[in-house]
Amino acid sequence: MKNLYSDTIVAPATIPGTGAISIIRVSGPEAFSAVDAVVSLKSGTISEADGYTIHFGEVSGDGDSLLDTVLVSVFRAPHSYTGEDSVEISTHASTYIVSELIRLLIQVGCRMAGPGEFTKRAFLNGKMDLAQAEAVADVISSTTEASHRIAMNQLRGGFSKELEGLRSELLEMASLLELELDFSEEDVEFANREKLIGLVEGTLSHVEKLAASFRAGNMIKSGIPVAIVGAVNAGKSSLLNALLGDDRAIVSSVEGTTRDTIEEILQVDGLAYRFIDTAGIRVSKDSVEKIGIERTYQKISTAEVVFGVLDCSQPEPLFKASLELLLGKTKGYGNALFLLLNKADKLSQNDINNFVTLTNNIVTLSDIKAVILPVSAKTGFGLEALKQSLSASEKALLKAESGTLVTNLRHYEALTASAHSLRATAQALRSGIPTDLVAEDLRAAIASVNLILGHDLGLSPESVLHDIFAHHCIGK
Amino acid sequence: MKNLYSDTIVAPATIPGTGAISIIRVSGPEAFSAVDAVVSLKSGTISEADGYTIHFGEVSGDGDSLLDTVLVSVFRAPHSYTGEDSVEISTHASTYIVSELIRLLIQVGCRMAGPGEFTKRAFLNGKMDLAQAEAVADVISSTTEASHRIAMNQLRGGFSKELEGLRSELLEMASLLELELDFSEEDVEFANREKLIGLVEGTLSHVEKLAASFRAGNMIKSGIPVAIVGAVNAGKSSLLNALLGDDRAIVSSVEGTTRDTIEEILQVDGLAYRFIDTAGIRVSKDSVEKIGIERTYQKISTAEVVFGVLDCSQPEPLFKASLELLLGKTKGYGNALFLLLNKADKLSQNDINNFVTLTNNIVTLSDIKAVILPVSAKTGFGLEALKQSLSASEKALLKAESGTLVTNLRHYEALTASAHSLRATAQALRSGIPTDLVAEDLRAAIASVNLILGHDLGLSPESVLHDIFAHHCIGK
Repeated sequence: MKNLYSDTIVAPATIPGTGAISIIRVSGPEAFSAVDAVVSLKSGTISEADGYTIHFGEVSGDGDSLLDTVLVSVFRAPHSYTGEDSVEISTHASTYIVSELIRLLIQVGCRMAGPGEFTKRAFLNGKMDLAQAEAVADVISSTTEASHRIAMNQLRGGFSKELEGLRSELLEMASLLELELDFSEEDVEFANREKLIGLVEGTLSHVEKLAASFRAGNMIKSGIPVAIVGAVNAGKSSLLNALLGDDRAIVSSVEGTTRDTIEEILQVDGLAYRFIDTAGIRVSKDSVEKIGIERTYQKISTAEVVFGVLDCSQPEPLFKASLELLLGKTKGYGNALFLLLNKADKLSQNDINNFVTLTNNIVTLSDIKAVILPVSAKTGFGLEALKQSLSASEKALLKAESGTLVTNLRHYEALTASAHSLRATAQALRSGIPTDLVAEDLRAAIASVNLILGHDLGLSPESVLHDIFAHHCIGK
Repeated sequence: MKNLYSDTIVAPATIPGTGAISIIRVSGPEAFSAVDAVVSLKSGTISEADGYTIHFGEVSGDGDSLLDTVLVSVFRAPHSYTGEDSVEISTHASTYIVSELIRLLIQVGCRMAGPGEFTKRAFLNGKMDLAQAEAVADVISSTTEASHRIAMNQLRGGFSKELEGLRSELLEMASLLELELDFSEEDVEFANREKLIGLVEGTLSHVEKLAASFRAGNMIKSGIPVAIVGAVNAGKSSLLNALLGDDRAIVSSVEGTTRDTIEEILQVDGLAYRFIDTAGIRVSKDSVEKIGIERTYQKISTAEVVFGVLDCSQPEPLFKASLELLLGKTKGYGNALFLLLNKADKLSQNDINNFVTLTNNIVTLSDIKAVILPVSAKTGFGLEALKQSLSASEKALLKAESGTLVTNLRHYEALTASAHSLRATAQALRSGIPTDLVAEDLRAAIASVNLILGHDLGLSPESVLHDIFAHHCIGK
């Protein structure tokens, strides 16, 4: 695809007013001359400078007062991030300096960059495909080892390579079908239908596997959702606080994740866990309170892990009733249930053992699988064991999802659409539907894969790209 | 002063997790070898690279997975910010990447930098004096043209040059006195005492002028404090909101300013105004309410400008009473009083004129100077005139403070101490006190000026420097 732009863009690549240094990016055909018009070097000009060199210069503001001394880094096309002539200007991290310098650059003909426009140009100039361009935002927002690894693999083209493989399989099938189509008047079936059906189904199962990996991929990217459920006085909040401890991180909504509120995040062993707060449950006949409780269970339904918190310092009959209520309410939700017998610090080891046995019996009778752990939010007892058990359980689960993980909703939707078209293709091939109709389904399956990579975006590439880059930061 | 450090420091120079790029700074004798141990270049090494060149490289994390692709900028001693061998590594702006890369650099022998340590090293290596080093933080936090100009002048050595001038005058006087001291046994007064007194007093008035400029300097740096005073229903809040409009900027406490709360900041024509909220005043016999009102007036006492807001839609007798209460309460506070006749949209032009005349008469009778302006928070009427009038008044006031402005509390205190010592010197010279005692006062005056520039910091330079740099950011 040809570069759609001939203008030169400018934007800050760091947030001014924070840190020590601010970086301003300039990219486009006039990048060098624009910077030369604004920055005075000790000797020579940026236009004459070699790529990958740094130059010390001064910027004058209005009235010839010194705005700042700067360092200018030069990148000559095509050896730059965008593939265009590019400059990075390093200034003191002052909002005033950055906004003035950008104003001066706009005065000499630059245009303020839109969100993600540097990365968009890198895509349009063939420096990366669309899935790689999208990974830039994911790499930046990754905060754990696991999410970083997936995003970096995607940025480096690992995901794209797998899709390119899929795409060539699909293209090969399509060319077989097209061949048949060319000779259709002679009523010849060149393609061995059975073999073709086999190919389509093989590719379909690959696409379905990728689409199915989105659940795990999204959990690694956005954090594994953990619902904490329990009676009002069971100590849910204090348990959460004790777990977060010094590692407490309140993470706000990040572009591309499925979070809709600000949640507490705990990182254990390279994975992030998002805690979902739920209203305390209690046996109640009050219909208003029941509605509140139903809301809690809607939240639980999205959780991967459920922490059921019980107060084991209460009398056994009450404990039993709480446990049974909890089991009834959480049954069928999440892939892992942890029953946490809180306030264990108030009990003797003997009593703790009794409660664990009691819990185990009831759980077994209810045909539920659960990890049962005595803990104390107050003393921290059992919390390390809980973290280790949680980590082991989730790591095993995610390990089962071997290979490439899809983390992007857009990719998931495109893969789901592709799978749908492939299912229709197989169906059509089986039922002897005319070749031209089969070919149409196959082309739709290819178009969906193309959409992920950014190949052949069709008549309105701008609208596709706009949706993708609109959520990026300025300067990226 | 000799460089006190032989270790290599590392820190992020931008805030990771924001923007598109993060910069990590490394400085010290092992900067190049440490980066070579962590970053693999396509060819060659950083240790062999020329200064002011950029190199593309890859960083492997644990288990040889790719942590990030980076750009490495090389600065060879002494041609770097710190004066040492330095490297800036540009990464994707991910918290995970930045913390991992810093961890890897620490693993190969770097140490996490303390607050402001890069700038401290620049000072210790003679790249800048202490006043210039302090200006780095001011340049970064400047948000207006005026505060930027002062900070940049200080960073570029304008302030230091003036102090160096002062210092040589003082050193010359001291050498005259020392000469006299050397020959004291012969009871000869080499120095012409009258001439010396003249010199000391000339320098004293210069020092006093600089110290006095702190009030204006601090206002330019931190914003000019404006108290908004008026009855509860006069429309203070809506007037403030209307003034701030789209330019609204809530500015939190910034290091080095005199602000103690989060305040609303309005920028007009290159100057910042800080609005101080006050409780509404009303005629009250309730002693509890009176205490609240007294607190309001404590706040007003720190203001440079007072906005007195009046509701001119109320009946004339009530308006008169409010005006007189306001004048009584604000008299003596601030250098400029603006009486704002709010809700002017409810009145005819004729009525507005009447209220302005009435206000003017009462103000004149009370022997108070005030700018009287009809305004409407609701329609925006008169607000542009208010901004222009405010700006004209303050610009004229600050223009009267020509020359260098002191913006730093530490400098103000040192100048005040120097002035004190010079006053004692002049006094001593006049009263014929022995030369050796006079010389002591003069040496104290010189020591105070030295403290600002960072010359001869004495036996414990570390403690002086610690206090200065402790409030800087990491990475600066």
